[in-house]
Amino acid sequence: MIRPNRSINLAVAQMGPVNLADEKDTVVSRLIEMMEEAKARSCDFVLYPELALTTFFPRYWVPEIAEMDKYFESEMPNERVAPLFEAARKHGIGFYLGYAELTAEGRRFNSSIIVNKAGSIIGKYRKIHLPGHSEYRQDREFQHLEKRYFQVGDLGFGVSELMGAKIGMGLCNDRRWAETYRVMALQSADLILFGYNTPAMNQNAVEEPHLKMFHNLLSIQAGAYQNSVWVAAAAKSGSEDGYRLIGGSAIVAPTGEVVAKAHTQEDEVINAVIDLSLGDYLKEHIFNFDEHRRPEHYQLIVDRTGRGAPESPPEEFIAPEQIGPV
Amino acid sequence: MIRPNRSINLAVAQMGPVNLADEKDTVVSRLIEMMEEAKARSCDFVLYPELALTTFFPRYWVPEIAEMDKYFESEMPNERVAPLFEAARKHGIGFYLGYAELTAEGRRFNSSIIVNKAGSIIGKYRKIHLPGHSEYRQDREFQHLEKRYFQVGDLGFGVSELMGAKIGMGLCNDRRWAETYRVMALQSADLILFGYNTPAMNQNAVEEPHLKMFHNLLSIQAGAYQNSVWVAAAAKSGSEDGYRLIGGSAIVAPTGEVVAKAHTQEDEVINAVIDLSLGDYLKEHIFNFDEHRRPEHYQLIVDRTGRGAPESPPEEFIAPEQIGPV
Repeated sequence: MIRPNRSINLAVAQMGPVNLADEKDTVVSRLIEMMEEAKARSCDFVLYPELALTTFFPRYWVPEIAEMDKYFESEMPNERVAPLFEAARKHGIGFYLGYAELTAEGRRFNSSIIVNKAGSIIGKYRKIHLPGHSEYRQDREFQHLEKRYFQVGDLGFGVSELMGAKIGMGLCNDRRWAETYRVMALQSADLILFGYNTPAMNQNAVEEPHLKMFHNLLSIQAGAYQNSVWVAAAAKSGSEDGYRLIGGSAIVAPTGEVVAKAHTQEDEVINAVIDLSLGDYLKEHIFNFDEHRRPEHYQLIVDRTGRGAPESPPEEFIAPEQIGPV
Repeated sequence: MIRPNRSINLAVAQMGPVNLADEKDTVVSRLIEMMEEAKARSCDFVLYPELALTTFFPRYWVPEIAEMDKYFESEMPNERVAPLFEAARKHGIGFYLGYAELTAEGRRFNSSIIVNKAGSIIGKYRKIHLPGHSEYRQDREFQHLEKRYFQVGDLGFGVSELMGAKIGMGLCNDRRWAETYRVMALQSADLILFGYNTPAMNQNAVEEPHLKMFHNLLSIQAGAYQNSVWVAAAAKSGSEDGYRLIGGSAIVAPTGEVVAKAHTQEDEVINAVIDLSLGDYLKEHIFNFDEHRRPEHYQLIVDRTGRGAPESPPEEFIAPEQIGPV
């Protein structure tokens, strides 16, 4: 079946670098160019990266956070990104876009929106798993200041309905946390979208650099398989003013198999016709949550944040005659 | 550093098939032979599979569950397995062993014990994620009756302290569920052990058989990486009376890398000196739970068992001006 009944022709638009000097207008033009490529391939939807309109500015420390205002959007859509929304309407293609959000109350989030083919925003996400730190760290060769420039997201892990699919929204570091996928799968997500900016070099100086790509793929492949969902992830890649980002944008099936993968460090569109029913056999058997999950044994996941002491086992768990040398 | 300060020379004893006709004495001799091989390699500990003393009997349906009593142990240790405990004391090697447990009250569990080098049982686990079904299924070519022969474990996901490590205990299907690893990691597990019996063919007739091994490795690699722990898994493999089991026993580092892997379908010992400190850099940075986890957004993991409707987003999440065509 070339086009299964419940299917989406999904495009992932990996971006090459966005440098400090790049104007947002230019960036929006690049996004539109990739949407046109997606249109030429009959795609229904385009996934763009996290903070797609700017360089990954959390790598830079500035004493006054307001100095970063120019990288934030105080409304969405706005004049600069309007052409992208117009292109969506013109081509009948929805999209997912990450950007820095500054609210009217002065709150800052690492956010994303999901937009339908009529150019209407139908869902919004504010990043929950912010990595890095909030102050300048003299002990670090690389700064990663997401905790300085953004507040923790307050909208939960949302699932939006579009194109006959339930679509979960996440950003970057969220994809490494199993809870992200599970909370979305428990809302019947069929497809989970991530945009990301992953530095090729960071504080883990003891770690071999090739593991960055392995960890990227391992996380999204396991999240897909263990939740019987499609996962797609779009990177910003290449060298932003000398700071390398990994690419490796990918579309992963509910089996955990990579079905499309970017292989450049530039603007690059990959796509796949994804059958939303493909994970059904997994949802009915091995990952039938109703049959097999045991939430009564998962309580620590919400009761604890960090690593703590082992729980005491139930008193009767080892009868006295079972202890000691035989 | 050939032998890091906090290290264990860990052996994983994969087993070839155990057929219906095999006596437990014979099986125990095989386990001891593998312990002796581990001793020759200066190992500290041996990991054995799930239901290591018998064939994987949940593939067979019998009308009266009591007909399966011969596959269960009503005490542990007992006369038949005593030689294994004696070997542990003699060689100064601890072990993890899966077996079918029948309690004095007539309850049945798919259980495992962890035993120190003095031959004393120091921890016990009863399998929580039982796969399969509880009744004969005429629609199925293969029966998988774990839910018939076993109750759901009632001891939680325990962590035992041994050899300077905090060791989590799981069995088979547990390794596919992200909650298993997380609940143990939240108790500061350094190392998580699984025994397993995974049929090479089962109900997922639509799935390519090679995916079985991929899913096995994907699950334990992701569990290791995302929790910064070592994971080891021991299979029963080969053809048990014509029913094929996958092998693929492995030791996986906190980076997610496979550092040792079985490659036969027979009794086979693999081992690795594992540095318990290897995951520290991950625990301090990317997977610093205290810094980065957000349990306030994970509540559905314990509030829901199965897949349900999407949660309503907070009312303010899309301001009216953000909805609709631009």
